[in-house]
Amino acid sequence: MSTATMNATRPIITPEELLKYWQGHRGLTRRVIEAFPEKDLFEFSIGGMRPFSALALEVGGIATGVDGLAYGRWSTWEELEASQKDVNTKEKLLAYWDSVTEKINKEWPALTEARFNEVENSWGFYEGPVRSILFYFIDNEIHHRGQGYVYLRALGIEPPHFWEH
Amino acid sequence: MSTATMNATRPIITPEELLKYWQGHRGLTRRVIEAFPEKDLFEFSIGGMRPFSALALEVGGIATGVDGLAYGRWSTWEELEASQKDVNTKEKLLAYWDSVTEKINKEWPALTEARFNEVENSWGFYEGPVRSILFYFIDNEIHHRGQGYVYLRALGIEPPHFWEH
Repeated sequence: MSTATMNATRPIITPEELLKYWQGHRGLTRRVIEAFPEKDLFEFSIGGMRPFSALALEVGGIATGVDGLAYGRWSTWEELEASQKDVNTKEKLLAYWDSVTEKINKEWPALTEARFNEVENSWGFYEGPVRSILFYFIDNEIHHRGQGYVYLRALGIEPPHFWEH
Repeated sequence: MSTATMNATRPIITPEELLKYWQGHRGLTRRVIEAFPEKDLFEFSIGGMRPFSALALEVGGIATGVDGLAYGRWSTWEELEASQKDVNTKEKLLAYWDSVTEKINKEWPALTEARFNEVENSWGFYEGPVRSILFYFIDNEIHHRGQGYVYLRALGIEPPHFWEH
């Protein structure tokens, strides 16, 4: 190894750290799903917004885009909808969530530093480096989860602590 | 330059890209502040939560922690409160927000790749690498901004598009 390489600063973040960061957020979102009473999970909403089950299915479905991040394989919306059509109870939603968690762990080794810098077009919606697409996935999850916190507060339920991943 | 260095993969993200990412989020949060009618910004809330002005001041105050990220200088809570005590109108909140935006741009050059890997204790609340502290700042902003979206919807106001940074 050359001296230059040996002395190189380690990068800001590694693929392994990004996986831990994402899965930490996903674990917290799972606890928010769990915090909802079954009926409210599928029915309660504020200001004409979707119930939290629909927000969680959006976030969970987007996370299956790990196939796109890793291999450039983007499902169609029809395929995504078909994969979620029977998810109509809290138990099934949590099982769906867990299946995506396992899928992410399984595909992650394909996400090398080099891969994060390649350009993909995510579902024809946004074209950019894989890094930016992943950050969008995570940002979108935090955004909708924050909305779930308001739903829970409006229902008189204490949400899980935000900083406990 | 050695061959090893020349062929090295570029990192997942650079300090410049992280600045753009953070300031992109801050620009969107600014537009959410703008979207609130003055009175609702300071008074409207759901489920016993704080009004959006208080959430925005928390997020804006935390962002002044760029001094901690860059130099390890963490203000006291008393100093932070004192710096915000006159921010009692929408105009003043936006001006405060903009002053923090400038401060971040000014201090950013101190945030090298190496600095992101150094350990800091942010206000005695969390100890970890500067990278993780910054991600917490951004996550907390997205979380509270998502809550602002629910407030706006409940008020019958269309929020700015989430994906437009």
